[in-house]
Amino acid sequence: MNLHPFADENGDTLHEECGVFGVINTEGEAAAMTALGLHALQHRGQEAAGISSFDGKQFYTRRGLGHVAENFSTAESIDELPGFMAAGHVRYSTTGGAGLRNVQPLFADLASGGFSIAHNGNISNAGTLREELVSKGAIFQSTSDTEVIIHLVATSRYPTMLDKLTDALRLVEGAYALIVMTPRGMAACRDPLGIRPLQMGRKDGAVVFASETVAFGAIGATFEREVEPGELIEVDFDGSIRTHRPFGNNPARPCIFEHVYFSRPDSIFAGRSVYEARKAIGTQLALESPCDADLVVPVPDSGVPAAIGYSQQSGLPFELGIIRSHYVGRTFIQPSDGARHSGVSRKHSANRSIVEGKRIVLIDDSIVRGTTSLKIVEMMRDAGATEVHFRVASAPFAHGCYYGVDVPERSKLLAARMKLEAMQTFIKADSLAFVSIDGLYRAVGEEKRKSSCPQFCDACFTGDYPTRLTDVSRREQDAAQLSFPDTKPVDEPV
Amino acid sequence: MNLHPFADENGDTLHEECGVFGVINTEGEAAAMTALGLHALQHRGQEAAGISSFDGKQFYTRRGLGHVAENFSTAESIDELPGFMAAGHVRYSTTGGAGLRNVQPLFADLASGGFSIAHNGNISNAGTLREELVSKGAIFQSTSDTEVIIHLVATSRYPTMLDKLTDALRLVEGAYALIVMTPRGMAACRDPLGIRPLQMGRKDGAVVFASETVAFGAIGATFEREVEPGELIEVDFDGSIRTHRPFGNNPARPCIFEHVYFSRPDSIFAGRSVYEARKAIGTQLALESPCDADLVVPVPDSGVPAAIGYSQQSGLPFELGIIRSHYVGRTFIQPSDGARHSGVSRKHSANRSIVEGKRIVLIDDSIVRGTTSLKIVEMMRDAGATEVHFRVASAPFAHGCYYGVDVPERSKLLAARMKLEAMQTFIKADSLAFVSIDGLYRAVGEEKRKSSCPQFCDACFTGDYPTRLTDVSRREQDAAQLSFPDTKPVDEPV
Amino acid sequence: MNLHPFADENGDTLHEECGVFGVINTEGEAAAMTALGLHALQHRGQEAAGISSFDGKQFYTRRGLGHVAENFSTAESIDELPGFMAAGHVRYSTTGGAGLRNVQPLFADLASGGFSIAHNGNISNAGTLREELVSKGAIFQSTSDTEVIIHLVATSRYPTMLDKLTDALRLVEGAYALIVMTPRGMAACRDPLGIRPLQMGRKDGAVVFASETVAFGAIGATFEREVEPGELIEVDFDGSIRTHRPFGNNPARPCIFEHVYFSRPDSIFAGRSVYEARKAIGTQLALESPCDADLVVPVPDSGVPAAIGYSQQSGLPFELGIIRSHYVGRTFIQPSDGARHSGVSRKHSANRSIVEGKRIVLIDDSIVRGTTSLKIVEMMRDAGATEVHFRVASAPFAHGCYYGVDVPERSKLLAARMKLEAMQTFIKADSLAFVSIDGLYRAVGEEKRKSSCPQFCDACFTGDYPTRLTDVSRREQDAAQLSFPDTKPVDEPV
Amino acid sequence: MNLHPFADENGDTLHEECGVFGVINTEGEAAAMTALGLHALQHRGQEAAGISSFDGKQFYTRRGLGHVAENFSTAESIDELPGFMAAGHVRYSTTGGAGLRNVQPLFADLASGGFSIAHNGNISNAGTLREELVSKGAIFQSTSDTEVIIHLVATSRYPTMLDKLTDALRLVEGAYALIVMTPRGMAACRDPLGIRPLQMGRKDGAVVFASETVAFGAIGATFEREVEPGELIEVDFDGSIRTHRPFGNNPARPCIFEHVYFSRPDSIFAGRSVYEARKAIGTQLALESPCDADLVVPVPDSGVPAAIGYSQQSGLPFELGIIRSHYVGRTFIQPSDGARHSGVSRKHSANRSIVEGKRIVLIDDSIVRGTTSLKIVEMMRDAGATEVHFRVASAPFAHGCYYGVDVPERSKLLAARMKLEAMQTFIKADSLAFVSIDGLYRAVGEEKRKSSCPQFCDACFTGDYPTRLTDVSRREQDAAQLSFPDTKPVDEPV
Repeated sequence: MNLHPFADENGDTLHEECGVFGVINTEGEAAAMTALGLHALQHRGQEAAGISSFDGKQFYTRRGLGHVAENFSTAESIDELPGFMAAGHVRYSTTGGAGLRNVQPLFADLASGGFSIAHNGNISNAGTLREELVSKGAIFQSTSDTEVIIHLVATSRYPTMLDKLTDALRLVEGAYALIVMTPRGMAACRDPLGIRPLQMGRKDGAVVFASETVAFGAIGATFEREVEPGELIEVDFDGSIRTHRPFGNNPARPCIFEHVYFSRPDSIFAGRSVYEARKAIGTQLALESPCDADLVVPVPDSGVPAAIGYSQQSGLPFELGIIRSHYVGRTFIQPSDGARHSGVSRKHSANRSIVEGKRIVLIDDSIVRGTTSLKIVEMMRDAGATEVHFRVASAPFAHGCYYGVDVPERSKLLAARMKLEAMQTFIKADSLAFVSIDGLYRAVGEEKRKSSCPQFCDACFTGDYPTRLTDVSRREQDAAQLSFPDTKPVDEPV
Repeated sequence: MNLHPFADENGDTLHEECGVFGVINTEGEAAAMTALGLHALQHRGQEAAGISSFDGKQFYTRRGLGHVAENFSTAESIDELPGFMAAGHVRYSTTGGAGLRNVQPLFADLASGGFSIAHNGNISNAGTLREELVSKGAIFQSTSDTEVIIHLVATSRYPTMLDKLTDALRLVEGAYALIVMTPRGMAACRDPLGIRPLQMGRKDGAVVFASETVAFGAIGATFEREVEPGELIEVDFDGSIRTHRPFGNNPARPCIFEHVYFSRPDSIFAGRSVYEARKAIGTQLALESPCDADLVVPVPDSGVPAAIGYSQQSGLPFELGIIRSHYVGRTFIQPSDGARHSGVSRKHSANRSIVEGKRIVLIDDSIVRGTTSLKIVEMMRDAGATEVHFRVASAPFAHGCYYGVDVPERSKLLAARMKLEAMQTFIKADSLAFVSIDGLYRAVGEEKRKSSCPQFCDACFTGDYPTRLTDVSRREQDAAQLSFPDTKPVDEPV
Repeated sequence: MNLHPFADENGDTLHEECGVFGVINTEGEAAAMTALGLHALQHRGQEAAGISSFDGKQFYTRRGLGHVAENFSTAESIDELPGFMAAGHVRYSTTGGAGLRNVQPLFADLASGGFSIAHNGNISNAGTLREELVSKGAIFQSTSDTEVIIHLVATSRYPTMLDKLTDALRLVEGAYALIVMTPRGMAACRDPLGIRPLQMGRKDGAVVFASETVAFGAIGATFEREVEPGELIEVDFDGSIRTHRPFGNNPARPCIFEHVYFSRPDSIFAGRSVYEARKAIGTQLALESPCDADLVVPVPDSGVPAAIGYSQQSGLPFELGIIRSHYVGRTFIQPSDGARHSGVSRKHSANRSIVEGKRIVLIDDSIVRGTTSLKIVEMMRDAGATEVHFRVASAPFAHGCYYGVDVPERSKLLAARMKLEAMQTFIKADSLAFVSIDGLYRAVGEEKRKSSCPQFCDACFTGDYPTRLTDVSRREQDAAQLSFPDTKPVDEPV
Repeated sequence: MNLHPFADENGDTLHEECGVFGVINTEGEAAAMTALGLHALQHRGQEAAGISSFDGKQFYTRRGLGHVAENFSTAESIDELPGFMAAGHVRYSTTGGAGLRNVQPLFADLASGGFSIAHNGNISNAGTLREELVSKGAIFQSTSDTEVIIHLVATSRYPTMLDKLTDALRLVEGAYALIVMTPRGMAACRDPLGIRPLQMGRKDGAVVFASETVAFGAIGATFEREVEPGELIEVDFDGSIRTHRPFGNNPARPCIFEHVYFSRPDSIFAGRSVYEARKAIGTQLALESPCDADLVVPVPDSGVPAAIGYSQQSGLPFELGIIRSHYVGRTFIQPSDGARHSGVSRKHSANRSIVEGKRIVLIDDSIVRGTTSLKIVEMMRDAGATEVHFRVASAPFAHGCYYGVDVPERSKLLAARMKLEAMQTFIKADSLAFVSIDGLYRAVGEEKRKSSCPQFCDACFTGDYPTRLTDVSRREQDAAQLSFPDTKPVDEPV
């Protein structure tokens, strides 16, 4: 959820790339429910949205750039999408450019009938598979990794749609939460490690799937359970539900960053309240890195729960020392006299009367490039803070993500460039601390990280990737000499 | 600032009608500064925005419906507005309909030269004055009350522009903060009682005026002082500043609702931090109306500072029991199965894991029609709260405003219709308390309300209007039998 | 009617500035009729359109840039304009810039009630009158000359609306066809000389006014008669019609260029079919300036009727040697290799198979700057024409127009710069002839021009202006030394 | 070219479905030339336009709904299309719906590289081929028949691109003029019978292809020759040109309706000026069906050349008895009083002063449904014509087209429903005559139609289709009982 006040000023942020939603066996209002569900998932992808529906005879699709509300709030838009089954997608552009062709759900008319797919995640061998398919005469209509799955299904020689889909997914590597529609029903599927989330709910006779549980609340549905890692759930139009495990059993490794940043605080992920997990991270931070200060100040909005946790554990008062503007989104023409350089921001402002003359603990969710953190520290000092202690509710972010999160290239990540002390100097803080990896695991309910078999995907912190990365390996072989010099962090700012 | 999660669903909200900003003696970037300044005042008026500039030869004006960012963020839009003096306006439609003609600044080519005016407030005898002017041949181009001032200036027989303006303002009654531009300089003026706010700042050689101090931060200017009630400040192009008091000296009565709701928490109003005033109201509430509960939950975002104050005073933990969505603005087509009636909202959601099984104190800034409060209480109960105690950070809102605030008609105001107990029953709370009038005055720094000569305009709470209301009186005489039966509050919901 | 194929390439064209339409005493569909009527008058003004209506209680107005069809073809647009009386206006921008504020009908709320006015023509002392009004405190909302009339009405001390209007028009000088609406009915009025046209029609119980008779056909109304020069016709809601002659009786001098160019060929103007007048001009041309050639080729579309007349009189075959494209309006990016300079045009093309090896007579309606004529001659030669004889269906256009026609400044008019022979050389024709002034008068039904008291306004040909030109005289006094040296035509191209 | 005044009122018209244009070996301005060329072909397809270009490295494509000028007149749009080779397409929707996906040129990334195709015509076995391809796993991105060719190329096992294309075209049946671009050059190809037109031109070093010769004039290119029926011309980047005849030699059968209606009058088609062909049809009509009348009146604009021919042959004067409005395109809200039923039209009007009291010969290009002809006759009578003789510059249009022309279903065609006498009664004419088939052939330069081997495709007149119609046959077998009762024309209007 792109809530960070400096987010679009300098690209110093992370983006989840997608949210998916599907509903089957409603009484004809599947698209309206899907629009509401996607709207609740808007924070997972703000650049484009799409919905496909099925009315027993044919599929209907409508896709557009921009927010769900811009594309799916009118009666006309919903009337174009009749039927009792629908699935939708919100997207932040990553793989494949931002054109309308890449907006999902993707749809194809296969010999076996219509096939619609919505995908959150990233297929790490998509480039390799695509080359093979094109060499056999396949024509791709998008640059999306997801289209690979469709072509694999289209050319699979298995007889049933379920077998074709399983056949296709066995060739695929990486992270995915999928919602598939065919003229016979809906299938929801999560990758063998469950890296990307997928939840299941119910509303009267309907079955609902969504990336996060908040989408269920938006339509009055009740949360039933997570789709399990490696599970494929089939729902037919007669209401029957069958579950499959095409990849056998694997220990799960869901993305720990869903807790730290992506998911909405009122969602339940991996069996735990995101809000409570974030508060618990704040508590851990206060235990691990206490601070002699006057106030706890969150970087709004994503730092708020951890700041509450820190405040409650430490006994330091929680105060809104930074006020976030509700009217952001465009960059204004700046007068030339350096308003920008004086630390002024249109997106938030220091609450000087609270901050002035105080020693403050700033709580933020993460440090990516560090430029934002520097600006915030400077803004607090400009407003009269006498000491600024920075506490980060995640571990140092030092590695790229190949599972569907848009991360700056590694050479831009502050934690990949510097050690802790240099980072503190870079952001000009009086002290700097991250929560420990084990503290993070404790906050999300584990005793500690099991290094032999970690309970989460934490590759962005540890570099320990849970799958093969075929396309990356090929690119690295092609361009070995261009790779980032991993062993020598640079201490100077870029 | 329209931050209330239910705001545009049922009209249960208040709107400030305007914000003004002006800057003189920049080096040619007056419009860019004005755009940034207005953007910081966006919460005071979100329906339209306008900027006029002057480059020593002529005036340029650009106005548009929608937000400042939609109209003034591009280089093209700013390039249309050259010059070293500019003034702007953001508007929430009240008097005069929503057409572009009513978007300010208003401009007229008078015999003495160009005349531009931006106005926050409401002239309570505008209708009467307009009739007189039209009967003499004046042709109005808008339905705005502000245009009356221009015609009074145009037809004044005094020689200088300052005398003409003073002549005009002496005929005018009500509330106003004005920024006027002529080919000779800028004038900023506040009504005799200072009902509406106006602040003065400096940036290098430039002088800046704005409705709130946050606008100074947005352009790197420093806050100097409030324009005083009844003060008219003239700034010339040579930098000279003269202050006038055309109405003599009056005791000030600024709008106390600026502290309660309108101003941004990081603004300074009437010499006091708005954030601190709101926290102090929360403290007063905790002292006056304590509560045996588990959690303090703010109605975001405007209830947050008071909730922090309540939490700190009471020792009850502050928790985000309601999560606000950042993607609101359009009403979606609702599935017919009653999602709306089950208390579901797209704009926020209960944070069930925090609320469930708990006794909570809800803190909101005010109760207007009461329908919103009812929905919030129901949402908390649906999420499992065992008790919901409602605490309001203002006094009962029982009277209309004739000074530039858009208030539902009196027959819709819950506090005009019911006594406290009935209100508690209406919103289905386990207990309900408002801060007392004297508690409110204490929170904003006074010892208590001086009833002979109140320090603030608090007519919305007390019905004690500080000016004549000429147009209202005439309408009431015209339609005495249609008036609201003030003496018999009705206890049933509408 | 801007039908000339080169029109928007180089500004070498004339524009009528307005068309007006009004209808009263329909049964509630006045706006729909007005939209159809204006659409038929679209050729008189293509930059903006507006309609005002009255439903017995209030006036409604809608105005927009662009064509009638873009603004008034939807049910929504018409539904905004209820009532049984309406008037509209199409505009080609001349006096007053192109902003929406200048789009007519103009409307004002006077003390005596609403007042709406639509005006075709130009008031030649508007600047002088405006200054006087502003010095008395009047505030203008547009830069249109028409607004002067409203202010004169607003400040007139006569008691009735008819008297106020007459009072105002007595102060006004120039050309006008007006349609005025008040809460008591409609008034249609033509200037004392009848320079601009205004026609009256009937449809069932309704009375209709329009600039041209084609508008009657568009709504199924029948043409009744011309509004006479200096006549003011009042129509009340009870159907009564009264005619007034506030300026006494004057000999009429309608604009002869309505016959030559402005009016649609299927209109009746000054009692004569425009198509027949144009054919008769062609006949005159053939009699006065015969030619030994193979074909008569019109410059489409405005040259077609005169070419038919020339062909029938001369016996030379009429052929489409120039084909006009129906898809024009935007200027394309040109490849850099000089496609433009080779005489290529997107708006028309030579019909080479007809023209090649032939001696042709080209018939055009007029020569303004001459650059278009040169291009056409070159295009014909490029297509293989062996001789090109140019015949012009009007007299040499050598003087500006102050009566509502947009003419290039005099120094750009070819006939003001050169004598006949030099003009022929300039446009590279083998021969060049204009119809004579007396031939022109004969074609429109007169015996010859009465020089003591000409039957038409032909100032653009003769420089004999029928009214005072107050604003022009003042400007010329202000800048006598800048004036165009009238006596020495320059023979070189600019 | 949709020039018919009633065209979009009642669907009584024919539409060519496409125009194509390509240019190779320019110096980097291929897209700008293509935009100009397509603009000149706008009459062949007004619903959508697209251009693809190639700069030696990659392909660029831009497509949009609406006219060429709306999509390709800005520098931004052309800058998106760099390169020295480009091809474009204008489209009137027929096969495949109006969505953007069907707008050409279509593009695919094949294993052998990029492949772009623009197609005018219709593939009459596209449905059958598509089914086969999908059953093998092909995924179609459009519903266009053209995409079949791409998939056939993608899956062809021949080694070179030329062989793959030839292989694909051998499987295809119907009418096509194609422009193909690959990373190695351009290919232009016409179906074996040359049903759809394709012309070749030169401009400096560049080679140009276009549906009509007018496109060459628009860019300053010279016409070289027709691409011959069944010819495939390859142009490489080194300027070498090779011609192929993959289908052997066949007698040509170009579409005779290009002469009658589709092509612009200033085009050369099948070696003959279209304008002269149309005039010659008028001459034939005058010889075959003379008339005792006063005037010849064309239905503008498409009837004009034939009317000139009729006038010159008969000696009857040619007059503009119908004036066409230049401002059409939207349907206005009609007042309810029946303006529509009284024969009033916004698109044209009777020139009453010319028509009144006269016996007229109306010349139109064709009769499709007949409703338009009826309206025109009624309009002439309403305007006072005493006799209306209808002469049609083509033969009775009684059969559908399967080669890329959008024709109403056969049951709507007047000539399929009635014999000549009934048609005359239906349109209320005093006499009615069509040109004879042999007269038509004489007008276009043949002695007569050779029935054993007709020189043109005239299936719309004769029902003699020159190719197999595989998809039609299958549909007819599927639904034999639903077919139109061919043998019993119905005499009543629908």
